[in-house]
Amino acid sequence: MYNFKNDYSEGAHPRILDKLIATNLVQQLGYGEDEYAQEAKAVLKEKLSNQAATIHFVSGGTQTNLLVISFLLRVHEAVISAKTGHIAANETGAIEATGHKVITTETIDGKLRPEDVAEVLAVYALAPHVVKPRIVYISNSTEIGTIYSKDEIKTLYKFCQSHQLLLYMDGARLGHALTAENNDLTLATISQYTDVFYIGGTKNGALLGEAIIFNKPELATDFDYAIKQKGAMLAKGRILSIQFLELFKDDLYFDLARKANTLAMRIATAVREKGYTFLTQSTTNQLFPILPKKIIERLSADYQFYIWKNIDADYAAIRLITSWATDEEKVTAFIKDLQEV
Amino acid sequence: MYNFKNDYSEGAHPRILDKLIATNLVQQLGYGEDEYAQEAKAVLKEKLSNQAATIHFVSGGTQTNLLVISFLLRVHEAVISAKTGHIAANETGAIEATGHKVITTETIDGKLRPEDVAEVLAVYALAPHVVKPRIVYISNSTEIGTIYSKDEIKTLYKFCQSHQLLLYMDGARLGHALTAENNDLTLATISQYTDVFYIGGTKNGALLGEAIIFNKPELATDFDYAIKQKGAMLAKGRILSIQFLELFKDDLYFDLARKANTLAMRIATAVREKGYTFLTQSTTNQLFPILPKKIIERLSADYQFYIWKNIDADYAAIRLITSWATDEEKVTAFIKDLQEV
Amino acid sequence: MYNFKNDYSEGAHPRILDKLIATNLVQQLGYGEDEYAQEAKAVLKEKLSNQAATIHFVSGGTQTNLLVISFLLRVHEAVISAKTGHIAANETGAIEATGHKVITTETIDGKLRPEDVAEVLAVYALAPHVVKPRIVYISNSTEIGTIYSKDEIKTLYKFCQSHQLLLYMDGARLGHALTAENNDLTLATISQYTDVFYIGGTKNGALLGEAIIFNKPELATDFDYAIKQKGAMLAKGRILSIQFLELFKDDLYFDLARKANTLAMRIATAVREKGYTFLTQSTTNQLFPILPKKIIERLSADYQFYIWKNIDADYAAIRLITSWATDEEKVTAFIKDLQEV
Amino acid sequence: MYNFKNDYSEGAHPRILDKLIATNLVQQLGYGEDEYAQEAKAVLKEKLSNQAATIHFVSGGTQTNLLVISFLLRVHEAVISAKTGHIAANETGAIEATGHKVITTETIDGKLRPEDVAEVLAVYALAPHVVKPRIVYISNSTEIGTIYSKDEIKTLYKFCQSHQLLLYMDGARLGHALTAENNDLTLATISQYTDVFYIGGTKNGALLGEAIIFNKPELATDFDYAIKQKGAMLAKGRILSIQFLELFKDDLYFDLARKANTLAMRIATAVREKGYTFLTQSTTNQLFPILPKKIIERLSADYQFYIWKNIDADYAAIRLITSWATDEEKVTAFIKDLQEV
Repeated sequence: MYNFKNDYSEGAHPRILDKLIATNLVQQLGYGEDEYAQEAKAVLKEKLSNQAATIHFVSGGTQTNLLVISFLLRVHEAVISAKTGHIAANETGAIEATGHKVITTETIDGKLRPEDVAEVLAVYALAPHVVKPRIVYISNSTEIGTIYSKDEIKTLYKFCQSHQLLLYMDGARLGHALTAENNDLTLATISQYTDVFYIGGTKNGALLGEAIIFNKPELATDFDYAIKQKGAMLAKGRILSIQFLELFKDDLYFDLARKANTLAMRIATAVREKGYTFLTQSTTNQLFPILPKKIIERLSADYQFYIWKNIDADYAAIRLITSWATDEEKVTAFIKDLQEV
Repeated sequence: MYNFKNDYSEGAHPRILDKLIATNLVQQLGYGEDEYAQEAKAVLKEKLSNQAATIHFVSGGTQTNLLVISFLLRVHEAVISAKTGHIAANETGAIEATGHKVITTETIDGKLRPEDVAEVLAVYALAPHVVKPRIVYISNSTEIGTIYSKDEIKTLYKFCQSHQLLLYMDGARLGHALTAENNDLTLATISQYTDVFYIGGTKNGALLGEAIIFNKPELATDFDYAIKQKGAMLAKGRILSIQFLELFKDDLYFDLARKANTLAMRIATAVREKGYTFLTQSTTNQLFPILPKKIIERLSADYQFYIWKNIDADYAAIRLITSWATDEEKVTAFIKDLQEV
Repeated sequence: MYNFKNDYSEGAHPRILDKLIATNLVQQLGYGEDEYAQEAKAVLKEKLSNQAATIHFVSGGTQTNLLVISFLLRVHEAVISAKTGHIAANETGAIEATGHKVITTETIDGKLRPEDVAEVLAVYALAPHVVKPRIVYISNSTEIGTIYSKDEIKTLYKFCQSHQLLLYMDGARLGHALTAENNDLTLATISQYTDVFYIGGTKNGALLGEAIIFNKPELATDFDYAIKQKGAMLAKGRILSIQFLELFKDDLYFDLARKANTLAMRIATAVREKGYTFLTQSTTNQLFPILPKKIIERLSADYQFYIWKNIDADYAAIRLITSWATDEEKVTAFIKDLQEV
Repeated sequence: MYNFKNDYSEGAHPRILDKLIATNLVQQLGYGEDEYAQEAKAVLKEKLSNQAATIHFVSGGTQTNLLVISFLLRVHEAVISAKTGHIAANETGAIEATGHKVITTETIDGKLRPEDVAEVLAVYALAPHVVKPRIVYISNSTEIGTIYSKDEIKTLYKFCQSHQLLLYMDGARLGHALTAENNDLTLATISQYTDVFYIGGTKNGALLGEAIIFNKPELATDFDYAIKQKGAMLAKGRILSIQFLELFKDDLYFDLARKANTLAMRIATAVREKGYTFLTQSTTNQLFPILPKKIIERLSADYQFYIWKNIDADYAAIRLITSWATDEEKVTAFIKDLQEV
């Protein structure tokens, strides 16, 4: 059985493990005060073209989302998300557990546009009997594999600014977004057109770890208190910073993501050539092909993946995910199996 | 400069890194559903002599404390802790941030006894104008290096049971407690005489990781929801389980702690021989010697440690910590320097 | 200008004020321990045909909802509500502020049916990555004026029981529901077929006050702690209990609600006779007629009401509310004005 | 049995009831938008000599405290209180339930001085491992009957300002403080030397109600959302504003408090003349005389009061409270009984 279920089925990229070994017995201060953290932040700020950015490393995506959102909101404020957004659909009420409503809105492709946000603002106008929207949460790539263009982000950001809203981007799969064939964003443009975002390590080669970027340092004042309070401050913070240093000191992070995308696109092409369609128009490492249930059943004998959504009596959408660690031969085999069944 | 500031200045024990490398590309399910987790839990249950125990792995101590305590308490309930307890003194209001008061009480040696708890119950009797005490939180070893005897734990547990209180032990340094020269507890007796406890990995050889043990499985029902909600469920849960498997498949965990204790006791003997006293009667890897400030100043040139407490114009207590990774030669050098100054 | 905006534009029914005056200088214990509370609870239990019920009085509906829901839920649990439900639409994230998600579902008439709940359960099946539904929240009458039949409540309750769900009814306008022409429920049947509900006083003749009824006393253990903690325990609890005693010692509560309904139905008949329709099929004291905007504009000169929803270029729905205090002559005048414009 | 247990044993001052009756059927907007609220705020601003103040009315003291404190604090911030402070000792963890630690400190007389606060700041210096103190909470009169002088408040306020701390005064018994024989504060000086405070109605003649005063309006922005969210926004807000209007349109509020103090001082004099001492040096309506247990037992036959604290085998301190409603003849009788036993 080969696993196409997710992009965290393996450990870390070998270069990361090597670096952990090489630095293992070097004494460092704890709680994020290690020298590697300084280095990793310097490397990242360079790539962001934003020397003013404030950066923190934590261990996972849900943790990041609840930390950032609960830190930036006051008691009566709320966050707006696509209904498919990870904070709305997959995090066990993590945001609500910090006291804040997640206002959801239906979207076609998992992306929020100014008109979606404007509609929410109209519904949430009856102050003080409703919460006050304050953060717009987006994911890039989205939970269904689509990505934002530079123009879309810029337009959304300007809308947010003119409505006293903060724009926060969940980058659990940011590497995959930035290396997609139709991408025109960079870390620098994202740093320019969002208030806060994070760069996901866990799903792109790290053992664990996400880098939270406050593009405007004034938003980050005292954030270390929150990290400690929510149990997210690792005593051995070096584990996180060493990994980000290794991923970003050259282009490893992007190379890994590009590989995942390339393999996904190979599968996508094969799906299309067989005449099948997709639930979403993904250009990244998550694919949602709609296949005959009989074929799904056959493929299930050799491959693990999620049955994502029932379409009708004969068809269902599945989710296939590739990663930096995906075995190319298994992709080839999967395509062959798909073509032959 | 050599660092005696804490027991998390280095990475992981080499056997752990080796195991991470060896298993790195084996595909596993995420979110704690990996095979290593099953193995590690089986090994631990054996050592606990408690097949019914429910075990979860998370990444840090503050995270563990806030998870367990907020999961077990209802809205109006509170936790009792020594004033020196980690949840009261060092966790940035993590418990309060989940909605619960930490009731603190002064102790002589960082340990809670039935009479301390009884006193709290007497003060918190005016229901419903006060919170309802429900959990007794203790640490072993304590934050000041002392340990509980089997008799003390048993007596406290019986008191808790007869007062509808849950007993929860913070085991951030449990290895050091269980290998102290004056210890008579085992994992099995702790499993018998507490409701919940955790075994700390971070401060005893792991990169990160704590094992939460619910001795009574009914207390653990649905706990995985809480882990996810608080951002503590690692996508690559294998990182935690592999480490605990390696630490407990033989006696590595205890060997590492014993080494730390032994080195600390060597320093303690030297301190005593020089005629100095201690702030607390530690038999574990944290020492609080009271030294002349002039000597502290000289030692500070070559060693890092915390100045813990001012005693008077001439004396202060410092905190020295040893670990599995402490260099024996540095301990020898430190003792020599102490004797010579 | 006459106010049809809501059912809390005036003070209290004169009998309530008289009783407050008559008892004013009688010394009583505070915090709900007054003798009137005992009497009022005895009277209510009689009407509920449920001597085991546990009853508490608090001051408002949002307060009641957040108290009951946060008290009954554990950290990872959630409440299901119609999208029009008060807790979802009108309470400024009060439930989320206590840490819990409100799962909303679209309904036709503001009422939840077993199939609605079943659908939510299906969506929230991917434990532990989603919250665990635990309470089903319904309102009777609903926020759009409709009511539940005995059969509907009974069926829903049985569904809840077979799915480990608690059924909680918001009775802010329960009097209006129970005196509607198409009603077949009583306080006793509601006590039988819900786990918890409340009887609203504020919108039916009281200065302020809601009676929370735990039909199963075991659910109410320690609830007084929660009342105090959320700031809902009035020092002079007598203010609440005296009012409920007066409202329920005979049929005053129902008489007041019936009057409100009767006046609303007079308006409804007039609306229908003029050939207009309604947004919702209300049989209680809230009406949502769809009227030509020109007529709305004319009526607005003499009457206050909410423009509820735009229908098209020419039509909008307005909300008209009657109460125990509505002046019958103003209703007559309004009908005449409606007929003549 | 006559009740000296508290100052909320009766209903409201007759003038308040009269006003509620007189205004009962005048239609008003709900949720604090009534005309009486405008009038009452205007009257209060005049007395505060602070036209910029923002004022809100809510129903009780615990509610006020949790509203103000949770609204002003960010997630990692905390409030400092005397150990005897109401938020620390008598509110069932209400502040912690909103996510914030209450840092307590021992005091001699229930009052906080700059040196007390400075000591807390020193202990809470190890950021980010501890919470960040942000609000200083004081009560006037205190929970043990003492009051602050103008000089004390001014000094404390200046200390707070120079340390980025907000000063918040709990005025549950502010009337009694401002009419004490040794008082030199006014509403205007309090408005000048605190950031936020509240004027308690419940314990001084109102049925219920407290007036929250933000002396600096920028602190109050959006506070109405919080009032609604915490269930503290009464639909019939008029009940609160009418009472404050009546209490403050002339000097009724102060007259009532003065009466309570005068009666308490009569008792105090009698206690002193009998040679007994007090637990605290109260000049307001709460007295804590230390009496022989035999005398306490005899007095208990005819009077209700709390046994506050055991002193030794023969003596205990009791708490006696007088109010606007206390019967002067009962005070005379009590003094006579005390003199004769």
